[in-house]
Amino acid sequence: MSENTTNKQICEQLKKERAKCKDVNEDLKKERASCDFTMEEVTNILDGGKEQTVRRRKLENLALNSGASIDKIPDECLDLRAKYENAVRKSCDYYNIVKDELAAMSGIESYGSQIIRRTVDGFFKDISPFYLHVGMFVTTVMGQCTPEQQARWLPKALTMQVLGAYGQTELGHGTNIRGLETTATYDPETEEFIMNTPTLTSYKWWAGTLGKTANHCVVLAQLWTQGKCHGIYPFIVQIRDLDTHQPLPGVHVGDVGPRMGYTTADNGFLGMKNVRIPRENMPMKNAQVLKDGTFVKKDRHGKLTYGTMVFVRVTLVSDAAFYVAKAATIAVRYSAVRRQCQAKENEPELQILDYRTQQHKLFICIATAHALQLAARWLWKTFTDVLADLREGNVEKLPELHALSSCLKSVSTSDASTCVEQCRYACGGHGYMMSSNLPYIYGHAVAIRTYEGDYTVLLLQGARYLVKAWEQMEAGNRLTPTVAYLSNAVSNQQAKWENTPEGIIRAFQAVAAAKIQFCVQSIRDLMKSGKCYEDAWQLTTLQLVEAAEVHCRAVMLDTYWKENLRLTASCSDNVKRVLRQLTSLYIIYWALDRAGDLLRYTCLSEKNVNILERQYEELLAALRPNAVGLVDAFDIRDEILNSSLGAYDGHVYIRLMEEAMKSPLNVQEVDPSFHKYIRPLAKGKL
Amino acid sequence: MSENTTNKQICEQLKKERAKCKDVNEDLKKERASCDFTMEEVTNILDGGKEQTVRRRKLENLALNSGASIDKIPDECLDLRAKYENAVRKSCDYYNIVKDELAAMSGIESYGSQIIRRTVDGFFKDISPFYLHVGMFVTTVMGQCTPEQQARWLPKALTMQVLGAYGQTELGHGTNIRGLETTATYDPETEEFIMNTPTLTSYKWWAGTLGKTANHCVVLAQLWTQGKCHGIYPFIVQIRDLDTHQPLPGVHVGDVGPRMGYTTADNGFLGMKNVRIPRENMPMKNAQVLKDGTFVKKDRHGKLTYGTMVFVRVTLVSDAAFYVAKAATIAVRYSAVRRQCQAKENEPELQILDYRTQQHKLFICIATAHALQLAARWLWKTFTDVLADLREGNVEKLPELHALSSCLKSVSTSDASTCVEQCRYACGGHGYMMSSNLPYIYGHAVAIRTYEGDYTVLLLQGARYLVKAWEQMEAGNRLTPTVAYLSNAVSNQQAKWENTPEGIIRAFQAVAAAKIQFCVQSIRDLMKSGKCYEDAWQLTTLQLVEAAEVHCRAVMLDTYWKENLRLTASCSDNVKRVLRQLTSLYIIYWALDRAGDLLRYTCLSEKNVNILERQYEELLAALRPNAVGLVDAFDIRDEILNSSLGAYDGHVYIRLMEEAMKSPLNVQEVDPSFHKYIRPLAKGKL
Repeated sequence: MSENTTNKQICEQLKKERAKCKDVNEDLKKERASCDFTMEEVTNILDGGKEQTVRRRKLENLALNSGASIDKIPDECLDLRAKYENAVRKSCDYYNIVKDELAAMSGIESYGSQIIRRTVDGFFKDISPFYLHVGMFVTTVMGQCTPEQQARWLPKALTMQVLGAYGQTELGHGTNIRGLETTATYDPETEEFIMNTPTLTSYKWWAGTLGKTANHCVVLAQLWTQGKCHGIYPFIVQIRDLDTHQPLPGVHVGDVGPRMGYTTADNGFLGMKNVRIPRENMPMKNAQVLKDGTFVKKDRHGKLTYGTMVFVRVTLVSDAAFYVAKAATIAVRYSAVRRQCQAKENEPELQILDYRTQQHKLFICIATAHALQLAARWLWKTFTDVLADLREGNVEKLPELHALSSCLKSVSTSDASTCVEQCRYACGGHGYMMSSNLPYIYGHAVAIRTYEGDYTVLLLQGARYLVKAWEQMEAGNRLTPTVAYLSNAVSNQQAKWENTPEGIIRAFQAVAAAKIQFCVQSIRDLMKSGKCYEDAWQLTTLQLVEAAEVHCRAVMLDTYWKENLRLTASCSDNVKRVLRQLTSLYIIYWALDRAGDLLRYTCLSEKNVNILERQYEELLAALRPNAVGLVDAFDIRDEILNSSLGAYDGHVYIRLMEEAMKSPLNVQEVDPSFHKYIRPLAKGKL
Repeated sequence: MSENTTNKQICEQLKKERAKCKDVNEDLKKERASCDFTMEEVTNILDGGKEQTVRRRKLENLALNSGASIDKIPDECLDLRAKYENAVRKSCDYYNIVKDELAAMSGIESYGSQIIRRTVDGFFKDISPFYLHVGMFVTTVMGQCTPEQQARWLPKALTMQVLGAYGQTELGHGTNIRGLETTATYDPETEEFIMNTPTLTSYKWWAGTLGKTANHCVVLAQLWTQGKCHGIYPFIVQIRDLDTHQPLPGVHVGDVGPRMGYTTADNGFLGMKNVRIPRENMPMKNAQVLKDGTFVKKDRHGKLTYGTMVFVRVTLVSDAAFYVAKAATIAVRYSAVRRQCQAKENEPELQILDYRTQQHKLFICIATAHALQLAARWLWKTFTDVLADLREGNVEKLPELHALSSCLKSVSTSDASTCVEQCRYACGGHGYMMSSNLPYIYGHAVAIRTYEGDYTVLLLQGARYLVKAWEQMEAGNRLTPTVAYLSNAVSNQQAKWENTPEGIIRAFQAVAAAKIQFCVQSIRDLMKSGKCYEDAWQLTTLQLVEAAEVHCRAVMLDTYWKENLRLTASCSDNVKRVLRQLTSLYIIYWALDRAGDLLRYTCLSEKNVNILERQYEELLAALRPNAVGLVDAFDIRDEILNSSLGAYDGHVYIRLMEEAMKSPLNVQEVDPSFHKYIRPLAKGKL
């Protein structure tokens, strides 16, 4: 094995470079000095209050200060099994470090908190194999089991004796939950359910934690009892021996193979052949099968199971916000450090953050992170209100929440994917390095765009609600809050263009109303021409998706605008000003993006467009001096950001080279493949 | 080590499933039976003629029929070093298989051929470490060396004794080539150049093949001689011993660390400290240093070095086309096989290809693959014409070609990235599996969007040409072909909307002209207000980027429309019809996408937009029965497609499970990490 003297020399050189510039890159220092607002106020707003910032930092200190989260060899250099093992090791470390804190948190709410999520990101560039156990298995037990069942499962689940996955999607079935093929057939003789995956396409597929880690799985299956199918219900199935971890008889379980991201989540498959589980393993809060096989449904409307689904979507909006915050932090800091091309001869090269095109790419991402974070918090509040109503048997608000969470999940995760990739592009070639962390963040952002309800499918669910709301309006009924604007829609379309945030928001509502109206009309016309409702719906889906998207944009603009006003009410003037600039930028950005629609459906004129364009550029210029301050205010620790380009000290080039030094390809000067293949080839002897 | 009986059982089950459905999935069979045009004609058009199809298939048979390209363990399961070694092994195999064919190809032109590229893709899901040797080192020797120098280098380079990289980008310098820090200082005493990378930021960074494979590198450096710097020139530097492969004294070379894609390209870094190379190692076709140190420039305009750059951009447009063709093939075939949700009760689930929203996502991708392929071929033809002119000293057409290739490279690679990701999204969760190959294709598509000139930077280069062209027009001078439309621009803006492909193309030209005019005016206004030209330019960059993009769209629409007419002139009627539908779809798609601009700058009315929307949907419906036929006509072999979702036989679920069985995580039933970490944790003993 040839020793690598290059590495030694470079590492020495890097130490010297570090010594030369020990604290922070000069450009970043200047940026921070020029920032004119109090970052801490902004951090508190994003965290949801001062106390939350304190709690978060406390947990981050606890979890990350020990250094247990740091990898000597980057994950992406390891083989698939080694990656998984490393992730298991760190999951156990992490659990041991934070378990007391976890235990102190109460109920399902705390799991929606970004506080845990952020420290987890500090440990895993990718993801923990325990993630779905905590995020889906435990939450399902909490949400769908009776208190007695919870008492049985939770203590073991929270101490990792029971490690569970959540198996819904099958190899052949995702969106169409009603089409799932897995069966749970009740046998009153033994008081057991018999679980089966009768075909290849019915193998459970995708569930995180399932492949190698879990010994239990919540399995969604068609419930058969007394010769009748009652539809899809969850069942807690033990799949591996608690002691030996061997799969139980009749169980096929394993890893689904490598993925674009979440490589360490051990997403798994599960086949079952006559696997028997006790009757009590069916979560019985909303429905149950009695000993004799009688099926009893407590949730008459079938709406209580919405709960978990909506909960997960809310957390995804929050995740989307955090991905964008991370990507923006990396790209803005890098753009402050990176210098490229002189504007004029004999001048130093410009910070690329000074290019208008770069500002155009990045500042909308900062604003999007704010918009999504405030939307997530607002949705969370709405969700907990609805939950409280539900506990009192009031299910009235659930359909609106469901439609809203569907649309917001789609649009926020799609926007997040776009923003993250835009930040990556803005970092040029270096954004393509894994050590930038941007490829990982992108891999996660696009995953949440698809899972838990595909982008298009969820927008169409939202559209169903919008069409119904339109019909309600026509019938003269009162509308729920998020669609109440439909009543004024027609007059807003004709209203004079008003060049204010409120005016633009009303214009978006007018566009949404026009598009919904068009869909309703299209469906009616098609039905008149002889189509049935479902065919007419299918033939209108392109317009329905668009209508739902614009509706969602209107809600997001409105929420961001109002929540920002509310949350900054008691802030210092400078914070008010900067955050007001950011909201205005966001609203104008979308007005320009949708100028075609606004020209079609409102009184926006070409002259107004030009004014908006000018205002947009003025806002870019106004935000420029505070750009680094704004991303610093996301307050994302280096361990969590995990990026050679985005670290707080801005020593980008030293860090890129330090990361390169960790590559296993650099352990030996001459790779063995030279002697095995290249040399013989060159000598014509291969 | 616990044996894995699950795997055995599943593998047996998969064999049975295979036996049940041995040839092709029933849905795909039906799709192919319903296809009503002659695929072979379309294949020939895309290949550039019947003979090219024959040549391509011959090389594919030669390279792929032996099975040497197939991996037992997918690359993404291996560690970084094993991945590289596997790629080196296969590169040597590939070279041995095709070397006689390669030798029979003549000159630089053959390297731009997709024929080689396609078989290479059959060997490497990612990329060959030899790729840049062939693509950049050899082509530089061919393009920039004198015949004597070529005689010295080429025989060794083509037999892989000399393996070269191309080192331009530095850790701190990408876009700004003039700012490169690496120096080549001529020493007349010894008749050598002394190569140096004086700072960390001047280390060469990114060059493929450089890290571990190459023993030479074309290094771009500031040429110093007789105390004067003459700017950037290439130098051929030996970096490793040919026999031992050890780095030569003063050379620091290694891998830059893992990347989002191209993991097996061994992208490398290179630092040099007083590395001496003979004077003759400077390619001397365009410039040279005489023995006494006198600098002699043969290329007075500095334009001959454009050649390689333009050549590479042309091949990138072609690569972009191929990425989209691959992604579309995968997504369309999968969408024909995948069934999800019933339209009505008691009906079978629908093929997802029957959903309008899915057609909307996919058919534009088929059309884009055609549009980019024809644009690439047309650009290639233009390029070779210009090359012929250059040989006769005529450099007149070079600026237009340069501007055109800049814009086309930007827009085509950006469109390709979007299309590939759209195809991946259209495959839902399964598109996230590495075995779909879509994540790899995306990783490559986004790479070419950045390298060899970033999206924004190149569009701004194109914009410089457009602004000059506008001034030429104002001065009453004759315009070059691709901007000749500017002369009629103003009248076209006022022209009545004409709802034909030609009408839409003219409308795009009108929009482009309006945007260029706006930019010219903005720059002039800013200069009147006291700004210098460069500041005025900077403040107009958002509009300049847009102008260049719309100009490029106009060129692409026009090229696609005309080239398709020309190439289908002698085709059968059905091929004419289908390809005409495809071009119309493409043109209307972009008209709708840019409706905002068309509403602002042409006489398009709301009513026209509605008509276009209806036509667009009619075209989706018309193309639906031929969708699978159209992707089959790309004629991409399974080895090249490398996709569980896109294989010709459509056995999607069997293939997904077969791929899962290859995961190293499935070798043992119980992963060792259970006993190491999870069990002790659960017992409270970790």
